[in-house]
Amino acid sequence: MKKIALLGTGTVGQTFATRLTTLGYDVIIGTRNLQEKLAAPGKDGAKNSFAQWHEKNSNIKAGTFEEAAAFGEMILNVSNGANAIAVLNLAKAKNLDGKVLVDISNPLDFSKGMPPGLIPELSNFNSLAEEIQKTFPNAKVVKTLNTMWCGIMVDPSIIKGDHVNYICGNDEAAKTEVKTFLNTLGWKDQNILDLGDITSARGTEAVLPVWLRIYGAKKMGAFNFNIVS
Amino acid sequence: MKKIALLGTGTVGQTFATRLTTLGYDVIIGTRNLQEKLAAPGKDGAKNSFAQWHEKNSNIKAGTFEEAAAFGEMILNVSNGANAIAVLNLAKAKNLDGKVLVDISNPLDFSKGMPPGLIPELSNFNSLAEEIQKTFPNAKVVKTLNTMWCGIMVDPSIIKGDHVNYICGNDEAAKTEVKTFLNTLGWKDQNILDLGDITSARGTEAVLPVWLRIYGAKKMGAFNFNIVS
Repeated sequence: MKKIALLGTGTVGQTFATRLTTLGYDVIIGTRNLQEKLAAPGKDGAKNSFAQWHEKNSNIKAGTFEEAAAFGEMILNVSNGANAIAVLNLAKAKNLDGKVLVDISNPLDFSKGMPPGLIPELSNFNSLAEEIQKTFPNAKVVKTLNTMWCGIMVDPSIIKGDHVNYICGNDEAAKTEVKTFLNTLGWKDQNILDLGDITSARGTEAVLPVWLRIYGAKKMGAFNFNIVS
Repeated sequence: MKKIALLGTGTVGQTFATRLTTLGYDVIIGTRNLQEKLAAPGKDGAKNSFAQWHEKNSNIKAGTFEEAAAFGEMILNVSNGANAIAVLNLAKAKNLDGKVLVDISNPLDFSKGMPPGLIPELSNFNSLAEEIQKTFPNAKVVKTLNTMWCGIMVDPSIIKGDHVNYICGNDEAAKTEVKTFLNTLGWKDQNILDLGDITSARGTEAVLPVWLRIYGAKKMGAFNFNIVS
């Protein structure tokens, strides 16, 4: 599957878009309203707007969430976790049905300040990935890559040696496809740990609280976990 | 500080009791009611009762939570996290005041089956360690060692190479004392990662959900995490 839709234009979406294009994928990056997004300032004011990124990467298609999802053979949810269900509704269920939907987002709750916690309804005995699977039962939801900084997601070789990427989902064939996709990013089979069905996202999304504390202590995000025994 | 009180007679408590005794500490293991505990069967029926362990380790003192806490210069909470506050109340605040209280337990919630989640009131925007610190403001609560199997806690050398043990707490001197204590168990300074104040227990207690999923996938608990960059 060479046509990849990215739902979300933030740092994670941009990072995937350029890396996947370099690797030869046919990529579209989707947003709520492309004209509004192109007119919007960046998070740092004038700097780093989506328009600036888009101009530098004019070879990469951009469109609405719906257009992106319709184009993609595989869909990557790289939206803000709090908005993920809304984003996928805008993408429309008919454009997700039967497709592999890779969920990379985390249900972070910034309402009580920094560092964020997890959205209570989407954590502990639930997870964002499960909520997506329940809401879009015909999509084949696979959770992976959500436990690290996006630079490592798309190029694990920036860290020497072994480090882990978890994967989970209900559809075995979909997980196999995603593992092959991960291989193309540089993930070795030995570092892809299959945790079982989509309920394991309760575990992998719960990595964020300790990840954020380590990030705070080390003052850098370019780290990952390795499981040793 | 050579006098160590263990609050809890389960596997973690027993593992610490024998290891610390071997290392030359003067150990007491505490339980709710010693006579009842000595009369109780093990979890597997007749096997592995506390009485059998106690007979084999008759050199190790045993008593009530209160007796144990009164004896200990340093207190290790190795109780079931759901009961931890009740256990510490039985140990009595006056026996904890001014002492280093090392909290190793996790607020696991088994009410919805296996694997457990976390107790909602003691997770996400709260943690068991914070709740203990709030309830016993004169104890110096330090959270550590709770992210791994107890065999690794007491002897990290059973895993080759580096692997991480998090520590957090509000009292810097107490953390320094606990780091020295951890050194005696075999933890190297380079593998003890100080995450800051006690609110970081929100992160380290949230390791359990993914730990349990990895345990389920690997069918073994003798693993730990290493942070690589």
